[in-house]
Amino acid sequence: MSAGFQVWAPDGVPEVAVGDDLAAIVARSCPELEDGDVVVVASKVVSKAEGRVVAAADREDAITAETVRVVATRERPDGPPLRIVENRLGLVMAAAGVDASNTPEGTVLLLPLDPDASAARLRAGLRAVLGVRVGVVVTDTAGRVWRDGLVDLAIGAAGVRVVEDERGRRDSAGRELGMTVRAVADEIAAAADLAKGKVTGRPVAVVRGLGHLVTDDDGPGARTLPRLGADDLFSEGTAEAYARGFADARAEEPARDDAVSAD
Amino acid sequence: MSAGFQVWAPDGVPEVAVGDDLAAIVARSCPELEDGDVVVVASKVVSKAEGRVVAAADREDAITAETVRVVATRERPDGPPLRIVENRLGLVMAAAGVDASNTPEGTVLLLPLDPDASAARLRAGLRAVLGVRVGVVVTDTAGRVWRDGLVDLAIGAAGVRVVEDERGRRDSAGRELGMTVRAVADEIAAAADLAKGKVTGRPVAVVRGLGHLVTDDDGPGARTLPRLGADDLFSEGTAEAYARGFADARAEEPARDDAVSAD
Repeated sequence: MSAGFQVWAPDGVPEVAVGDDLAAIVARSCPELEDGDVVVVASKVVSKAEGRVVAAADREDAITAETVRVVATRERPDGPPLRIVENRLGLVMAAAGVDASNTPEGTVLLLPLDPDASAARLRAGLRAVLGVRVGVVVTDTAGRVWRDGLVDLAIGAAGVRVVEDERGRRDSAGRELGMTVRAVADEIAAAADLAKGKVTGRPVAVVRGLGHLVTDDDGPGARTLPRLGADDLFSEGTAEAYARGFADARAEEPARDDAVSAD
Repeated sequence: MSAGFQVWAPDGVPEVAVGDDLAAIVARSCPELEDGDVVVVASKVVSKAEGRVVAAADREDAITAETVRVVATRERPDGPPLRIVENRLGLVMAAAGVDASNTPEGTVLLLPLDPDASAARLRAGLRAVLGVRVGVVVTDTAGRVWRDGLVDLAIGAAGVRVVEDERGRRDSAGRELGMTVRAVADEIAAAADLAKGKVTGRPVAVVRGLGHLVTDDDGPGARTLPRLGADDLFSEGTAEAYARGFADARAEEPARDDAVSAD
């Protein structure tokens, strides 16, 4: 059983309300926490504790407010258009990550203002209450380009490595592993979802056995995971980019062409 | 510890060579397998056993041969262009999934011809050798759009649910969970990578405690996970789509405009 780990999602985690002390709630639900564990918390409960709730009627306005850049949109027959956007956190998500499930009736949840800071507060709180040195990952659920189904991702992290850089390490044939950088925080989020998902209403999971990924300092956080800008070959949806190219070509036509076509 | 599971990557898995009996190798490495376990195997070892090896000198030709559709390309100063393509398996990947690490010197590995069939064969073999009913996931490592770092994905599956459809299930507030379809096979692949990655050269992992995802029949397999076609808002890279739109607008100009601009 070497090179192994365990994941479990404790029951009895109460509904979280605005102003609740999340560290106290997690500590009560996970008294078994030990040094080197990773605590994985769904962003929903973090947002609830932090009061990131708005009226459901304002959902579309909330999405607009959370949007830094529109990446792609698509009309839908059964409601407002699908909007895939970059949000304040640098996450490219449908509806900017504004969530209408598992929320108090008539409300929607916004993502935490600073999930890395939320993770660091929870980590410090668990150290204060239980005296343990753990890593914390705050997760959200997202779709993927080209893949069906949703998976959980790390949107906040403290005291845990978010990527494991294997560059320079050698493979079994003695060659460098090349550009292998593992998004271990995302893999931890995905693993935790398998435990949380076994029974609904389990917003917290504990991962034990990955202590080599737990760090003394809070670390850079999950804000380092988005890769946008020059390295992003998909900064715009195909339809949007095509339309922009088409319009630019038309705009570049000499004025006299317009005169001709205006005959 | 309810709603939990364990993952471990056994040591002592030998180097796999062309023609090796993968089921016999996994059975020797994982004698502890029980009904309801999920065996997760890196596609590398499946490809090696199936002889999916070509000379490294032919890598670019191999990528071209594996390519069904080019999605995006980018020139690189330090080598051949980056090619993000849809491959035979419907997977959109850099280099079509052709792999040059952890391969015999001077060779590159192609993905298995039919990873779902490979998973089904391994599953049947483990049932024959050990008499256990397990699920099998074949994984590969891939980058993500908009996210840094690589994660493992399910490219083959047998006897395990690849998605868990929560539509119709109710959240804690009694509302339907909406369009929540979990890509559990991808989350299993990611979880297994955390165990396999703890020590290099661990191509196999066992997941115990997710028996509710293990099925009697082989099931639809991971070939159902790619989501392309009409639902794909990113079927083409931004630069490629922009250039196509620009060219189409030019091509649509009336012939007389060409005459004018040819003055």
